Amino acid sequence: MTADHHVVIIGGGFGGLQAARSLKGAPVHVTLLDQRNFHLFQPLLYQVATGSLSPGNIASTLRAVLGRQKNARVLLAEAADIDAATRHVILKDGEIGYDTLIVATGSRPTYFGNETWRAFAPSLKTVEDATEIRRRILLAFEAAERETKPNQLGALLTFVIIGGGPTGVELAGALGEIAKDIVGMDFSNIRLADVSIQLIEGSERILPTFSPENSAKAQMVLNRLGVKVRTNSMVTDIGPERVVIKRGEILQTIPCRTVLWAAGMQASPLGQALAQTAGAKLDRGGRVVVEADLSLPNHPEIFVIGDLANYPHQTGNPLPGTAPVAIQQGCYVANLLRNRMEGKPIPLFHYRDRGNMAIIGRASAVAEVGKFRFSGFFAWLVWLFVHLIKLVEFENRVLVLIQWAWYYFTRNRGARLIIGDKRRV
Amino acid sequence: MTADHHVVIIGGGFGGLQAARSLKGAPVHVTLLDQRNFHLFQPLLYQVATGSLSPGNIASTLRAVLGRQKNARVLLAEAADIDAATRHVILKDGEIGYDTLIVATGSRPTYFGNETWRAFAPSLKTVEDATEIRRRILLAFEAAERETKPNQLGALLTFVIIGGGPTGVELAGALGEIAKDIVGMDFSNIRLADVSIQLIEGSERILPTFSPENSAKAQMVLNRLGVKVRTNSMVTDIGPERVVIKRGEILQTIPCRTVLWAAGMQASPLGQALAQTAGAKLDRGGRVVVEADLSLPNHPEIFVIGDLANYPHQTGNPLPGTAPVAIQQGCYVANLLRNRMEGKPIPLFHYRDRGNMAIIGRASAVAEVGKFRFSGFFAWLVWLFVHLIKLVEFENRVLVLIQWAWYYFTRNRGARLIIGDKRRV
Repeated sequence: MTADHHVVIIGGGFGGLQAARSLKGAPVHVTLLDQRNFHLFQPLLYQVATGSLSPGNIASTLRAVLGRQKNARVLLAEAADIDAATRHVILKDGEIGYDTLIVATGSRPTYFGNETWRAFAPSLKTVEDATEIRRRILLAFEAAERETKPNQLGALLTFVIIGGGPTGVELAGALGEIAKDIVGMDFSNIRLADVSIQLIEGSERILPTFSPENSAKAQMVLNRLGVKVRTNSMVTDIGPERVVIKRGEILQTIPCRTVLWAAGMQASPLGQALAQTAGAKLDRGGRVVVEADLSLPNHPEIFVIGDLANYPHQTGNPLPGTAPVAIQQGCYVANLLRNRMEGKPIPLFHYRDRGNMAIIGRASAVAEVGKFRFSGFFAWLVWLFVHLIKLVEFENRVLVLIQWAWYYFTRNRGARLIIGDKRRV
Repeated sequence: MTADHHVVIIGGGFGGLQAARSLKGAPVHVTLLDQRNFHLFQPLLYQVATGSLSPGNIASTLRAVLGRQKNARVLLAEAADIDAATRHVILKDGEIGYDTLIVATGSRPTYFGNETWRAFAPSLKTVEDATEIRRRILLAFEAAERETKPNQLGALLTFVIIGGGPTGVELAGALGEIAKDIVGMDFSNIRLADVSIQLIEGSERILPTFSPENSAKAQMVLNRLGVKVRTNSMVTDIGPERVVIKRGEILQTIPCRTVLWAAGMQASPLGQALAQTAGAKLDRGGRVVVEADLSLPNHPEIFVIGDLANYPHQTGNPLPGTAPVAIQQGCYVANLLRNRMEGKPIPLFHYRDRGNMAIIGRASAVAEVGKFRFSGFFAWLVWLFVHLIKLVEFENRVLVLIQWAWYYFTRNRGARLIIGDKRRV
C-alpha cells in the first residue's frame, strides 16, 4: 500500500465524511463520491421542516469541509453499480477504479410497498423534503385562516405524523410549538383548540428504543404541547384528505390534509449491487451483513459502514442506524487502513454507546447515557450541547447557535418561508 | 371614512408592505394580499444566487412583519382581476371587497418575446430563481472539475450575463469573486485562466443610469475581477450551449453552458386589468400612468405604486423601478389616506432621490448621492450600511450582518448548496 493506493468512499454522510477526514495525512489518496455537493446534518433536519432553521444552517459543502485536506478530492457523481472483480465503481456517467472501497450510502424512507402513500405523506430525508414539509404545514395554516366553512377546518388543522421514533417525536413536538407560537399571533382566525396534532405509533409506546420511563415522559411532554399520541395503531391507508388507522380490530378514519411519514427506512440500493458483485449477504431490510472488521466476506478491500451496514458482532442485533454509529465506523475503517499499511495488528470494531437522545418541543428532551436516564430541560441542554459540538466541527456552524438563541428568546421563526412549486400554492 | 374603511393592498414588496406599515394606527382596516407568504429583500437576491446568503437571510414572513399591527391582516392569495365598478378584487379562489385599493404588484422579467430563451437563461426575481441560478453556476464548476476533454471545458467555464444594469453588474462581480475563491481551493482541476465571465450590454456603457465616470470605474473593477465587458452588443439568440451576439454588423457565437438574464423587466399583468376595469392608461412597458397623487384618473380610491406605476409628474420621465421609489410611494399613499380622513390638504407626491448604488464584487461599489459620486471601498461601506439599516427594520436581520462579516473574513461560502431538482444533477 503506497501513496498510489486509492480509497474510494461512496456517500458524504456522517460515516463517509468521517472516513475521509480520518484518512487525512495517510499515504493514500481519497475520492469521496456523492450525488449532492454537501453534507447534511440530519439530526437537525426536522428544524428546517418546521421553520426554525434554514437549509444553509445545517449543511456544509463537501468541498469546503475537505478543501484543505491534500489527499482527498470530491466528485459529484451518482454510483450506479460496483464491479468487485475489476475493482471499479460504475458511475451514471463514467467509472472510477479503487484499491479500497468504503460504501456509506445509508438509507432512504420506505413506504413498505405502498408507493401511492408517498405523494400524500412526505418523509424527511433530504433538504427538499424538509422545505416541502414546511410548505405543507404553513399552507395548511394559511388555508385554515381563509376557510369560512367550519366543516372544512378540521381536516385543514389536523396534522398526522406516522411513526413514533425520534424523528416522529421531534416533528410532533416542533409542530406543537409552532401551533402555540403562531396561532393568535400570525393567524388571528384560527383557535388553538381547533389544531389537532396526532402521532401514530404501531408498537405499544413511542420511542421504543428508549426506556419505558422515558417513553412515558416523552408522551407526557407531547400531551402538554397538545399532541395526541396513538399507540398500537397501524396505518392501513393514506389518501389526500384522510389517514385510516387500525387499532386492534377497529378501523378509524382521521380526516386530515397534512400527513408526515417517519415510519421506516430501508437500506440504499447499493447493497443489492454488493450482493451481486461480491456475494454480500443482505438482511431483510436490505442492509449488508459485514464482518467483525466491517469488511465483506472474501473482500477485505470492501467496507460497508453506517446505515447500510448490519453489524451483529457486538450485541447479536444490528447496531442502530444513527450518526454516532456511522461516525465511529468511519473512524474505525480509516484507522484499520492505516494499521494495514504499517503491518500493525487490527482490533475489531467496537461501538461505544454514548447515549440516546430525542428532543421534544422547544426546551425538553429525553436522554439515556449508560445507566443514567434524564429528561426535561437539562436533557435538552445536553442535547443542544452535543449537537452544537458536532456542528461546530465543520465550518461556520457557530451561526446556528446564535440563530437558535435568537429564536429561543424571541419565539420568532425567521425560516418560515413557503418555498417551492408555486403552482401548488 | 371610518374604522370600517377597508384598504386592500395587492403585493407585499417594498411598496405594498410600506403602505401597510404606514397605515398602522390609522382608523382603517388593512388587508395585504400576496401570492407568497414573505417579503423578499430583492437588492440582496444576487447574493443568494451566488451562494453568499441563504434565502432565509433575506426574507421575512409578512405575518411576522405585520403580526403586531392590529389593523392589518395578511392573506395568501393570488389576485386575478379587479372589478372597479363593484370595488372588488377577484382572487383565483374567491373575491374581496375594498374601499381603497393599492396595487403594488411590481414587475417581472421579460425576454422581449423570445420565450424559448427563458429555459436557457434564467432571470433573477424569486427565491426559486436564485437557488436555480446557484445550482447552475455550481454544477458548471462541478462538471468542469470532472471534464477530461479540453474542448468541452471552454463552454462549461464560460458564464454569460446579459444586461449591464445594477443586477447584471452585481451578478458578474459576484461570479468573478466566486471564481477567485473556489478555483484552486475547492476545485483543483480548474485553472482560473480557463474561467470566462462575460457581461453583455446593449448600450455603449454598463450602468447607463449612472454617470459615465462611475460606469468606467465599474468596468475597471469588473475587469480586475476577470469579467469581460462587451458593450454595444445585442443578443440575437440563446441556445443550450451558446449565446449569439451582434455588435454592429458582426455576429459572434459564444459557446457557454451558463447564461443569466438581467436584461429587462415588464410590469405585472394587473396593469392590464386596471386598464380594462378602470380605464387606466398603460405605457409601452405595461406600467400604469398615474395622477400626481398616485391615484388613477377618475378613480381616487385606486392607487398604483412601485414598479407597476409610471409617475411622470416630477421629471417628465417615469421614476425608476427601485425600492426607494416604491417605499416612498407606499408611505405617501398611507399619509394621503390619513389626511383624506381628517379633511387635511393633500400635497403631491415628491420623490426624494437619495442616490443610486451598485456593488461590484466583495468590497467595491459605485454610488451617486446628489452631486456626489464615489466609488471603491468607501462606496461599498455606504452600500452595506444603507442595506443593513433597511434589513434590520424587519425582524432578525442582524444575523445577516454577522454572516456577512464572517464570510468577509473567512472567504467561505456556506450557502453554496446545490438544491433543487435532483434529476437534473
